[in-house]
Amino acid sequence: MLGRIDHVGVAVEDLDEAIALYRDRLGLPVEHRETVEDFGVEAVLMGVGDGHVELLRPVSQDSAIAQFLDRRGPGMHHVAYSTGDIEAALAAARQAGLQPIDEQPRIGIRGLRVAFLHPKSTGGVLTELVEQAGER
Amino acid sequence: MLGRIDHVGVAVEDLDEAIALYRDRLGLPVEHRETVEDFGVEAVLMGVGDGHVELLRPVSQDSAIAQFLDRRGPGMHHVAYSTGDIEAALAAARQAGLQPIDEQPRIGIRGLRVAFLHPKSTGGVLTELVEQAGER
Repeated sequence: MLGRIDHVGVAVEDLDEAIALYRDRLGLPVEHRETVEDFGVEAVLMGVGDGHVELLRPVSQDSAIAQFLDRRGPGMHHVAYSTGDIEAALAAARQAGLQPIDEQPRIGIRGLRVAFLHPKSTGGVLTELVEQAGER
Repeated sequence: MLGRIDHVGVAVEDLDEAIALYRDRLGLPVEHRETVEDFGVEAVLMGVGDGHVELLRPVSQDSAIAQFLDRRGPGMHHVAYSTGDIEAALAAARQAGLQPIDEQPRIGIRGLRVAFLHPKSTGGVLTELVEQAGER
């Protein structure tokens, strides 16, 4: 069901400062930058191995990321796993008693289909599934 | 300096329950289980791709994980990146103005050399370096 760790999502207050940290101090390249209106975020993917660190800045005050920053401050927000078939993965998660936040996959960054599982059902870890062609 | 995401560390209160979640509900195999006295934790590595989810239960009340659980409850604790030369990575991090928690590498799970960077210098993300032969 889960192929690999696709990315770790990090909530940030200042995107340029966060890019400078990961690029200039930790040596990771910027691979992609996109505003994902549906999630209320501006996101930057920093490349590492075959995965990413996803930096997330809120662009609307009612976004989940804005609420997370208010509650906890900057830091790790979620972990995302690749899957070859998100419909099947979501059905398997539901069948296993996990609680999807998204009943149906949504379109996330880079146009990929994604779905989140509620941290209440995953040990406090906001868990994302990302559909990637060629993954198991 | 950073090769790939080696693992995501997750603080848990009940290790067997967490194993059941990742193994039975999310389909990840148990690859390793070890008590790391120096860190005051019992740790289990769940395999995913060429990385892991590292489940961490405190075995001493003054461990960092026990304090984290008291403060924040179960959830994501740190992210670890592989590096081929931890001495060089630690020196580069220090040179870049990042703040090591460990002045020298320590021996972590599976006997690997590890070092943590303070979240104050890494945008609120507790960041671990893990030396792995063959990584860049």
